[in-house]
Amino acid sequence: MTTLPRVLIWNEFRHEKQHAAVAAVYPDGIHEAIAQPLRAAGFPVRTATLDEPEHGLSDAGMGLVVLHSGHFSKLFKRLMGASCDLKWREADERERIWVVAPGHPIAAGLGEHFELAREEMYGEFFDIPAPDELVFVSWFQGGEVFRSGCCYTRGAGRIFYFRPGHETYPTYYDANVQRVIANAARWAAPTAGVMLRYGHRPQPLEKLAPS
Amino acid sequence: MTTLPRVLIWNEFRHEKQHAAVAAVYPDGIHEAIAQPLRAAGFPVRTATLDEPEHGLSDAGMGLVVLHSGHFSKLFKRLMGASCDLKWREADERERIWVVAPGHPIAAGLGEHFELAREEMYGEFFDIPAPDELVFVSWFQGGEVFRSGCCYTRGAGRIFYFRPGHETYPTYYDANVQRVIANAARWAAPTAGVMLRYGHRPQPLEKLAPS
Amino acid sequence: MTTLPRVLIWNEFRHEKQHAAVAAVYPDGIHEAIAQPLRAAGFPVRTATLDEPEHGLSDAGMGLVVLHSGHFSKLFKRLMGASCDLKWREADERERIWVVAPGHPIAAGLGEHFELAREEMYGEFFDIPAPDELVFVSWFQGGEVFRSGCCYTRGAGRIFYFRPGHETYPTYYDANVQRVIANAARWAAPTAGVMLRYGHRPQPLEKLAPS
Amino acid sequence: MTTLPRVLIWNEFRHEKQHAAVAAVYPDGIHEAIAQPLRAAGFPVRTATLDEPEHGLSDAGMGLVVLHSGHFSKLFKRLMGASCDLKWREADERERIWVVAPGHPIAAGLGEHFELAREEMYGEFFDIPAPDELVFVSWFQGGEVFRSGCCYTRGAGRIFYFRPGHETYPTYYDANVQRVIANAARWAAPTAGVMLRYGHRPQPLEKLAPS
Repeated sequence: MTTLPRVLIWNEFRHEKQHAAVAAVYPDGIHEAIAQPLRAAGFPVRTATLDEPEHGLSDAGMGLVVLHSGHFSKLFKRLMGASCDLKWREADERERIWVVAPGHPIAAGLGEHFELAREEMYGEFFDIPAPDELVFVSWFQGGEVFRSGCCYTRGAGRIFYFRPGHETYPTYYDANVQRVIANAARWAAPTAGVMLRYGHRPQPLEKLAPS
Repeated sequence: MTTLPRVLIWNEFRHEKQHAAVAAVYPDGIHEAIAQPLRAAGFPVRTATLDEPEHGLSDAGMGLVVLHSGHFSKLFKRLMGASCDLKWREADERERIWVVAPGHPIAAGLGEHFELAREEMYGEFFDIPAPDELVFVSWFQGGEVFRSGCCYTRGAGRIFYFRPGHETYPTYYDANVQRVIANAARWAAPTAGVMLRYGHRPQPLEKLAPS
Repeated sequence: MTTLPRVLIWNEFRHEKQHAAVAAVYPDGIHEAIAQPLRAAGFPVRTATLDEPEHGLSDAGMGLVVLHSGHFSKLFKRLMGASCDLKWREADERERIWVVAPGHPIAAGLGEHFELAREEMYGEFFDIPAPDELVFVSWFQGGEVFRSGCCYTRGAGRIFYFRPGHETYPTYYDANVQRVIANAARWAAPTAGVMLRYGHRPQPLEKLAPS
Repeated sequence: MTTLPRVLIWNEFRHEKQHAAVAAVYPDGIHEAIAQPLRAAGFPVRTATLDEPEHGLSDAGMGLVVLHSGHFSKLFKRLMGASCDLKWREADERERIWVVAPGHPIAAGLGEHFELAREEMYGEFFDIPAPDELVFVSWFQGGEVFRSGCCYTRGAGRIFYFRPGHETYPTYYDANVQRVIANAARWAAPTAGVMLRYGHRPQPLEKLAPS
């Protein structure tokens, strides 16, 4: 048996307070829409937002799931070592998300593709390092494609980027999206850690006899 | 200065002899359509076909570029260790090929995407090992995506799979397709080789003093 | 909560019957030495051997962990699409296995390296496709290195190759080796599967309106 | 034919001026020791050092080869998005560098391994993202291993990290090391570039007809 990892959901929580159109879709904030199905699945969930002291991030574990426009967060850009820039368009168009790594735990329980009736378009070239594992590729009605599910490791921490989620669309109520997020939370959970030790090691592990 | 590698183009060369619709597009065979721009670029080019003795493959170097339905050749399937199966449809639909690795030599000289007005659709899931490098992703008008440019290494040999090329379409006369094939021929050329040695090595490189 | 996957351990079980030196180390067969700690950890375990009807493999699930000389099995070579050849030496030398992917679930609970006092040497070049994830690198007293823990995916199935395990050494009684095998059994377990569908798709997902 | 890329070699050039032991090995600076064989091979070479105006980096192209302690440069750490920390020891020990990607252009012309009689030890865990391609693995006499040749891409630029080169050893006079550096300079050279375009794309490539 494995216990579910603790999840901390972080959201700016400003759009919802400033724009009626966003509040209409996410009245309690996007973080609550994401939290609810995870709580229902048994994850211990906390939330935090930008306007709390220390942005609500006074402690943080490892394992990071970055959603949608989080691609442009300082944190993600720094971990990627790249601009993370992309093309975008808001035109109420259809997105079809294809699974290209069907054995990956983040794709567990999905069909071979799923659709979002209306989403913001994100298009290539997406300036990220080549993912360690590419799980999803999106098709957009307007003619673009996008690497929509990307796995990375930094140190002993795992990172998953998942594209969908524009704040004016009910994306986070979609059952497939909720499933991906729950799968990703499990996948990104830290393992019983190897202790990482660095620096001066004056004492060799083997005797340095001259050969 | 680097000299261009020798190129051997292999084609079944049966469709062109049996089907007037194919012969109309490729009167001298698909292999000649592929050979012509490579010769013009200075590559030393030979061709071989299925009905020659030993299928024209009495000698063969390393470095393999597999085009279109070559995904289902015995050779490619054996090198991949996978079924290499996929979805397909012939419906005269548009394909848009996006560059997702803009610094890769196989993408040199291309724009950020290019289009083929009519092509056969190949759709995911494409049952291949995750590519060592993914260079192109295709968008299809009918709603599918496809990993269209995939790099692999086996032993000291390099393999590139490139999706387009259905025999009833003039794909191999497209300047972008020709450029990709020339780039791939250069990329797949064997390097001055490391000699691969295997087997019993009774003599250690270091003295096995007891510790 | 997650339940542990069913495990089938396959062993030739001939060396143990034919060579007293091997039987002295593994009196009930290597498969039983591997099975015991997995059973103790709660995995449902079955074993099968070469001389049973159908080699004991009348049914088989997905997820494959290949140990030591299994690198030269037909199954592994076919899945790799490569010769899987390597250098080797039996000289009672020390192996030190270093973790190079400390966040990987297969490395969970290990230190930054562990040692096997005496093992068979396997040395590079190991003719495998570049692993999707490289978890361990071995140092050998005699001067070689080896990629000792290699992850792959084929179709929806996960494959892990783990180097140690020569039959004349008590490798499978080592607590770190046992931990790696249990971790790998969990990691390779199939996920709730995406159904893989291939072949003719005459009906597009989108209307093919002329543009 | 392909022309050789322009090379800019950057070195702090302080150790050589401050420490007689370093000056004895590299009297004209490490950058000149690296430059000489590249010039002899026909590369157009410039050098730059820390104490020049703008550190001699007033213009800079793409393509980056990072040597030895450059792993801790701001530039490399930022591009990696990781601490790039490691273990180290100065104990005059032997390093044996094994080729694990024999078909890679950076390994062209090498044997299956080469040795440096005395080098500084760098040991795992090396806190880098998993390399896109791993070309070399080092064995150290003192018992450690290290991923010594690591390829990355950021945007359209290629990055190669190569481990050897401590300033008190004549590493850069070694013919194999010189060959790796020349190979890497060729490999990292920018290709005829795909133009990277980002940002708002209000106009879809396809008509957004309601389906």
